[in-house]
Amino acid sequence: MPDFSIGVDLGGTNLRIAAVSGEGKLLEKVTLGTKLALGRDHVIDEMCNAIQDLSHKYKATGNFLGAGIGLPGLIDLQAGMMRKAANLPGWENYPARAEIERRLGLPKNGARVVLENDARVAALGEQWLGAARGVENMAVLTLGTGIGGGIVLGGRIWHGMNGMAGEFGHVTVAPDGHLCGCGNRGCSEQYASASGLLRMAREAIAAGQAPSLAKAASSDPEFGAKSIYNLAVQGDEPARRIFQNFGRYLGLLLAGLVNVLNLEMYVIGGGASSAWDAFAPSMFEELRERSIVYGATAPPDPLKSGSSGSTTERKTIVTQAVLGSDAGLYGAARVSMLSG
Amino acid sequence: MPDFSIGVDLGGTNLRIAAVSGEGKLLEKVTLGTKLALGRDHVIDEMCNAIQDLSHKYKATGNFLGAGIGLPGLIDLQAGMMRKAANLPGWENYPARAEIERRLGLPKNGARVVLENDARVAALGEQWLGAARGVENMAVLTLGTGIGGGIVLGGRIWHGMNGMAGEFGHVTVAPDGHLCGCGNRGCSEQYASASGLLRMAREAIAAGQAPSLAKAASSDPEFGAKSIYNLAVQGDEPARRIFQNFGRYLGLLLAGLVNVLNLEMYVIGGGASSAWDAFAPSMFEELRERSIVYGATAPPDPLKSGSSGSTTERKTIVTQAVLGSDAGLYGAARVSMLSG
Repeated sequence: MPDFSIGVDLGGTNLRIAAVSGEGKLLEKVTLGTKLALGRDHVIDEMCNAIQDLSHKYKATGNFLGAGIGLPGLIDLQAGMMRKAANLPGWENYPARAEIERRLGLPKNGARVVLENDARVAALGEQWLGAARGVENMAVLTLGTGIGGGIVLGGRIWHGMNGMAGEFGHVTVAPDGHLCGCGNRGCSEQYASASGLLRMAREAIAAGQAPSLAKAASSDPEFGAKSIYNLAVQGDEPARRIFQNFGRYLGLLLAGLVNVLNLEMYVIGGGASSAWDAFAPSMFEELRERSIVYGATAPPDPLKSGSSGSTTERKTIVTQAVLGSDAGLYGAARVSMLSG
Repeated sequence: MPDFSIGVDLGGTNLRIAAVSGEGKLLEKVTLGTKLALGRDHVIDEMCNAIQDLSHKYKATGNFLGAGIGLPGLIDLQAGMMRKAANLPGWENYPARAEIERRLGLPKNGARVVLENDARVAALGEQWLGAARGVENMAVLTLGTGIGGGIVLGGRIWHGMNGMAGEFGHVTVAPDGHLCGCGNRGCSEQYASASGLLRMAREAIAAGQAPSLAKAASSDPEFGAKSIYNLAVQGDEPARRIFQNFGRYLGLLLAGLVNVLNLEMYVIGGGASSAWDAFAPSMFEELRERSIVYGATAPPDPLKSGSSGSTTERKTIVTQAVLGSDAGLYGAARVSMLSG
């Protein structure tokens, strides 16, 4: 009779809802499209119906502990609202938590709704059930279109004063580098992200230095990070160099984090992390060169240390995420268990 | 009848011992030279005698809560030993805590000895009684010959896994920059420290771009950071430019910290921080440009916000330290109150 929570991952494309037991067992997962065009209230309706269906279904097996909802944007935790919601029209400064609780008839028996940033719940998910299971202090870098981040200290999300801690994507890694949407130059997400890969590929093509990339870009309508990766794996030098640069900038970012935080583990997730074998060697090289703390605490063979128990607890582990897009679902469920 | 602790600041030059009440009142301070030439055991003798004198003297007024000892180097907190002690010959891997406790007849009534890194205790001192009094989450950057650092979360030092958290001095701020002793290029302490100032001045002199600095350097046997500052204050352009660069690199370092940690306050201490008015404008400019989190949380007039209560608790404050070299003494006393 396990107690359970509902985790929700509300993205611009998919709305996913899962029932997860207190021990971290997935009971059931529902995937819906996010029908943004039908408006905020329609999306909330669909979400609440799915939460209600699942909570009714599993109520017989244990207590419903609450629902956690991962959202892309800046969350005001106290107010239960989004303060910035670039990809969710109508959610900014709208009392989402109160409205969702009203529809679900919560709070009830201690069960509540918690809103949380999507990168932060993904971090908590990897800490609870993923690559960092059993690790109390860790960070996740989610390499997607941009770079999302989350820091977990003592098994809980470290929010910082305004819920803004973990903005790894806007840490400067190239002081005179590429202009970022945030107004700064050389933000890490201009390099160590899927969009960074594409930009570097386009630059190499424009410079006439990458014939295979140029051919792929003109012939493949879905040319993207994956295409660059495929070429790199086939040994194409320009494509390999792009991933080496990607790894170097990621290594520089990590070096700063390791020097500042001295955490037990740094987990690399997001779509671009699947190119791990293409960027990890230069990432580790840069990290070792640039972090005095990593130099003192690196495992003997970091490329092999991730998943095994071969290193002691005092070593700094940098490794790939394992939960994929489910990290956010698990983390969202977890966050409602930790609250209150 | 205040309870009290003893704080010790053991540096390469001075050995200072203070009795501090639980409420943070300085009861008495003793300053001795650190007689390194007479050997480790002599230094420990002198330290223990001073601790004993002070603890006997104030025992009548309240309970002796313990002694905290701030040391320059890497501390193994569990073992009570120094692992790296570049400036204290003979202290590496020597069971200092056990030996000091033995001489003091501790533990007794819960009173113990705690060893702690000097930059970390300075951070705790500023948090307890200095610029960040009442602020639970903050960091201190100590700009001296190098850059020391400390992070305080929830009113306690954040050590990280190996006691290495807060190595701000080796965060890369210039990827192709000056070679650092740690092997990396462009570490922050190559720029935003007293030695960084001197190097930049020597470079400007060598390039023939700084006649006033050249004159001062050749005529003043004690030419140093203070001389550069004096010229900058007098309006000398090359000297002003050096402090602008200093501020820019410090701002870049801070921008990363603010993006990652989102703390309430960042306190700039150490000898070089007294040149605040010469570097703070460019530091804030860089910080605002390079930190998306600072951009969203900056007080309206950061140069005036430091000491006043004019900003709300949700603003990111960057300000000067106020305790000077006493921060470490207070912090060392505090650390023994928090332990156990």
